[in-house]
Amino acid sequence: MAHIDLKTDKPGIVGLFHFSPETAKPLCQLAETLLRGPSPLSSGEREMIASYVSYQNNCHFCHTSHGASAAHHFDGDLSLIDDIKKDFEETDISPKLRALLDIAKQVKKSGRDVAEKDIQKAKDEGATDREIHDTVLIAAAFCMYNRYVDGLGTWAPKENEAYDEMGKMMAHDGYMRARPGLD
Amino acid sequence: MAHIDLKTDKPGIVGLFHFSPETAKPLCQLAETLLRGPSPLSSGEREMIASYVSYQNNCHFCHTSHGASAAHHFDGDLSLIDDIKKDFEETDISPKLRALLDIAKQVKKSGRDVAEKDIQKAKDEGATDREIHDTVLIAAAFCMYNRYVDGLGTWAPKENEAYDEMGKMMAHDGYMRARPGLD
Repeated sequence: MAHIDLKTDKPGIVGLFHFSPETAKPLCQLAETLLRGPSPLSSGEREMIASYVSYQNNCHFCHTSHGASAAHHFDGDLSLIDDIKKDFEETDISPKLRALLDIAKQVKKSGRDVAEKDIQKAKDEGATDREIHDTVLIAAAFCMYNRYVDGLGTWAPKENEAYDEMGKMMAHDGYMRARPGLD
Repeated sequence: MAHIDLKTDKPGIVGLFHFSPETAKPLCQLAETLLRGPSPLSSGEREMIASYVSYQNNCHFCHTSHGASAAHHFDGDLSLIDDIKKDFEETDISPKLRALLDIAKQVKKSGRDVAEKDIQKAKDEGATDREIHDTVLIAAAFCMYNRYVDGLGTWAPKENEAYDEMGKMMAHDGYMRARPGLD
């Protein structure tokens, strides 16, 4: 049960959006811009970064829903969600994306934990300033979403399959039109 | 020097807003909603929570600028910035705000570190569900802003006085019209 009375049984951030539509709007606009707006990184790559950071933060709802969204940007195979837990052992990711994920992992700890060598590694693999910027901001943003979802004690469905439809909506319809279950 | 070429010498998040105006917009809209939108907590109290979390995250730019903004919501005395470092030793804060600041401190660590007893303490001091919600979301949001500012290695003026004008603008004009130095 959530720490406060959300007046809905919807899970994760969806329940919070119902409780507080006025803050839901800028939070959805930010997600839309970061994950689907202009960027040299594809939306699938950006959803992978979001899901990876959420897993590091032990936020089951965000890890699984954004992992499902990432999967739906590719072939829809939800095993990607589990592979994120294994540090992309079975997923073919480029050395550049690997270096960006390593930066995201440092951002999760603290902004001050991003070292010059982490940035240089990404640049050596071909990452541009824009790609590094977008990675840091996405990782930082999920340190917010994760704390919002878990800091208020929301519940989350356990199985990957329960996130399939939600991930498909996030990937195909985005965060403004689709705010799952809101409209 | 920042980790990427921001093409400006402006400090902290202001430099990042120059580099990326498309993400600046939803980030400013979120700050405006959280710190100046409708809430049972005053903007001064909300700026205190923002500055307090930023200090816990060792983010000098956000701690000092939002501390200055909090000061300008009251009598303009910048010594509040230093008192935040001393856990409000010399500031008269209510037991309810103290309990909310303690929740914010847990959110800073992780969403999962907010315990039922932290919530109950705030409720016992008269905090409503809305006040607890707003506290958790503001604390979470500053875990994002702090990581964005420091994860990209931006610079920050050292002295409190350097943030006086910026704090005044943030307190009086807000985050949409005033985005410092942007327009």
